[in-house]
Amino acid sequence: MSEKLIIWTLDWVPAGEAPRGFVRDLRLRWAAEEAGLPYEVRTVPFEGRETNHLDRQPFGQVPYLTDGDVSMFESGACLLHLARRSETLMPRDPIGEADTVQWVIAALNSVEMVTVPWWFLTITGQPDNGLTDWFNQRLVRMERVLAERQWLAADRFTVADLLMADVLRVGLVRAHGERPATEAYIKRITSRPAFRKAHADQMAHFEAADRMRSQR
Amino acid sequence: MSEKLIIWTLDWVPAGEAPRGFVRDLRLRWAAEEAGLPYEVRTVPFEGRETNHLDRQPFGQVPYLTDGDVSMFESGACLLHLARRSETLMPRDPIGEADTVQWVIAALNSVEMVTVPWWFLTITGQPDNGLTDWFNQRLVRMERVLAERQWLAADRFTVADLLMADVLRVGLVRAHGERPATEAYIKRITSRPAFRKAHADQMAHFEAADRMRSQR
Repeated sequence: MSEKLIIWTLDWVPAGEAPRGFVRDLRLRWAAEEAGLPYEVRTVPFEGRETNHLDRQPFGQVPYLTDGDVSMFESGACLLHLARRSETLMPRDPIGEADTVQWVIAALNSVEMVTVPWWFLTITGQPDNGLTDWFNQRLVRMERVLAERQWLAADRFTVADLLMADVLRVGLVRAHGERPATEAYIKRITSRPAFRKAHADQMAHFEAADRMRSQR
Repeated sequence: MSEKLIIWTLDWVPAGEAPRGFVRDLRLRWAAEEAGLPYEVRTVPFEGRETNHLDRQPFGQVPYLTDGDVSMFESGACLLHLARRSETLMPRDPIGEADTVQWVIAALNSVEMVTVPWWFLTITGQPDNGLTDWFNQRLVRMERVLAERQWLAADRFTVADLLMADVLRVGLVRAHGERPATEAYIKRITSRPAFRKAHADQMAHFEAADRMRSQR
């Protein structure tokens, strides 16, 4: 397929280190940059986002992705789709593929399942909440894994590193404790040119939206 | 491959409707039954589970799966692996595949990300916790989807229904409010012979473990 991918995100989000720089269209921009897949970014309105695109995304979230005839939501699912389009993101042998997919799902369902609700409780005024022990246990387990290896899967960069580094950089923003291997891992993975370009483009996208708003 | 799959679970868990009947090896038993893939069940000890199989499962959890040379953890990843082995679980056309994968990830990362931490806070004495609104919002969104269709993806049963029904039956155990479409969906999907056999086998597995324990 020579058609461009279309990555859908919001037309604006409030200023600040978060949510800007953390909206999950970043994951798809980053994957497309890593894989050299051409893409464009389109938007849905921030106002009314909870309900005005439920037919495209049943939870009112972004991102979603259009790839020719295929339209899909959930950043994790879109990453697995892009990984099938580019060996840069996932090896083609069954063992390397299984290794990559298991760590993609681990990021989504074992790590982010705890870090995001913990973060949500924290920013809504409950920093010492009932998920803290579970949160710390997950970070301890990941520190053990990352102390022993450079890449999560298949002895090379894969989409699993892209996703886990993104999940952990959000989770660690407000975490306590020494996590040297995890911190080095996040720094190493987010130093990749594809992340830097995706992040800069995402920030520029929302800054352009600020200028549009100020002119209204 | 004609080798049997090996589904790894715990050798025992405490009695009661939960955790018995909810340990996630059920998902893999169920998928193997749907697909007609031969399998056997092997175990790791309940005692010391937090640390004694970290080299096989980095969070100390079950299940994990052996399929010939492939060994992998995370029930969601194992389901995607089995879905590639059997068209019963996922259609082969790109649109049907994307539809299935997006709903698998939605179950893991949009629904279960909220239902499991909410349930955890609830059983640890915080039934009215800071995740309740988010939890209810997710159930409202799923009710809207399930009121309009029989299957989540591709107009047929897929592994996405298997997983979402399992996620929702856990989430709804303690939820309030009327969810007629969701309740009908769970009932319909868990009425399938493959679920019933997997569930009965899982319960029998733990009951056999009780008898072993009482003889020690």
